[in-house]
Amino acid sequence: MSGTLHVVGMGPGDPELLTLKAARVLAASPVAAFFAKRGRPGHARSIAAPHLRPGVELLRFEYPYTTEIGVDDPRYEPGIRAFYEDCAASLAVRLRAGQDVALLCEGDPFFYGSAMHLFDRLAPVHSTVVVPGVTAMSGCWAQAHLPMTHGDDVLTVLPGTMEAGALAARLAGTDAAVIMKVGRNMPKIRGALDRAGLMGRAMYVERGTMAGTRTVPLATLPDGPAPYFSLVLVPGRQRPR
Amino acid sequence: MSGTLHVVGMGPGDPELLTLKAARVLAASPVAAFFAKRGRPGHARSIAAPHLRPGVELLRFEYPYTTEIGVDDPRYEPGIRAFYEDCAASLAVRLRAGQDVALLCEGDPFFYGSAMHLFDRLAPVHSTVVVPGVTAMSGCWAQAHLPMTHGDDVLTVLPGTMEAGALAARLAGTDAAVIMKVGRNMPKIRGALDRAGLMGRAMYVERGTMAGTRTVPLATLPDGPAPYFSLVLVPGRQRPR
Repeated sequence: MSGTLHVVGMGPGDPELLTLKAARVLAASPVAAFFAKRGRPGHARSIAAPHLRPGVELLRFEYPYTTEIGVDDPRYEPGIRAFYEDCAASLAVRLRAGQDVALLCEGDPFFYGSAMHLFDRLAPVHSTVVVPGVTAMSGCWAQAHLPMTHGDDVLTVLPGTMEAGALAARLAGTDAAVIMKVGRNMPKIRGALDRAGLMGRAMYVERGTMAGTRTVPLATLPDGPAPYFSLVLVPGRQRPR
Repeated sequence: MSGTLHVVGMGPGDPELLTLKAARVLAASPVAAFFAKRGRPGHARSIAAPHLRPGVELLRFEYPYTTEIGVDDPRYEPGIRAFYEDCAASLAVRLRAGQDVALLCEGDPFFYGSAMHLFDRLAPVHSTVVVPGVTAMSGCWAQAHLPMTHGDDVLTVLPGTMEAGALAARLAGTDAAVIMKVGRNMPKIRGALDRAGLMGRAMYVERGTMAGTRTVPLATLPDGPAPYFSLVLVPGRQRPR
């Protein structure tokens, strides 16, 4: 009898934004796995810690690289693929032995998450339950007191890694926008927001729902790269009622 | 001393997809308010029920109409505005008396929610905390086992109420899409997906995370209007790793 894979959203950072279902799954799982950058404790693991059961087997999946080599580097894709293969094999051993496994994911598992690459490999073979989570963007707009989408608003979610022209084109005509992966892309993002006429409504949110969070109008933020846990939000057109 | 307004996301339907924070706020609130359609118990209220404290004052805010008259009807806007004014006034009375209030919202409060109209009126005057929730779309794609956005995917969230040409234009060139407010707009939505070449990837999800949920490729669904709790999901381009 194979175990069940639970792919579990851990929410945007505030440990209280975990769901009741996630807490129950964590408390029942003999094995818990999480992704982490080299030298970091792992954000999802920290959120999960108070809920894990005593004696749980913790599997740390450490990315071979995140930004150390570019996605265009010929080593990038094969290295990442081998990494995900290894992670999936490691979970498959436990599942085949009949153990349930919780795979911890920051935010929501199916919204820009590494866990999808393990889901793709394991779900066709093993019983799988996906527990959705509160996304980072929801955490940010709640924390920042920015009502985002009203009535018939269109929302566009964009990675800051996009080429400048494409970014400006997708921003044109949307009512609300979220720009993820800000980091070193900030100068390009500013340019695209300017071209789309949205700079006046753009807000910068850093570490939403976490310690040291702050929100400032993007236009007032000094130039320079932004940290990983940051987003740009363009709230939808306010149609007061 | 004024009370605190908590605007609380109740998640997509499964009562276990409430956050720990929402559960704590509900258990501590002497007043809880919820929106409901005429003749219905109110979805958010049903999810909250097991967490509310004994003797809680329950305020039911019943919409004067939802689809009975059109948004273009001259009576629509004034009637809805008066309704939100009354709701806000009712909460303000409790807040001014020093009572904390929980305003219950289906899904996430700032993602297409009525509660924003009360937030807009009350937050400038009263201490306010917004508790984000799992959105209906996250609940649906988790339930349907549809990984949605990968790497540098663009996600576009669209209301099915949009005009057909505008809908097709926003669908063109997006990687992933969510179409909300499906209902009677289904024939138009099908047409727009066809024009954008996305019909082959479009999935229909009904009552995600709730009893009686189902997922079918939209192309295989018989013609006709869809119920309120339904969405169309177009998962992002799968780039297997």
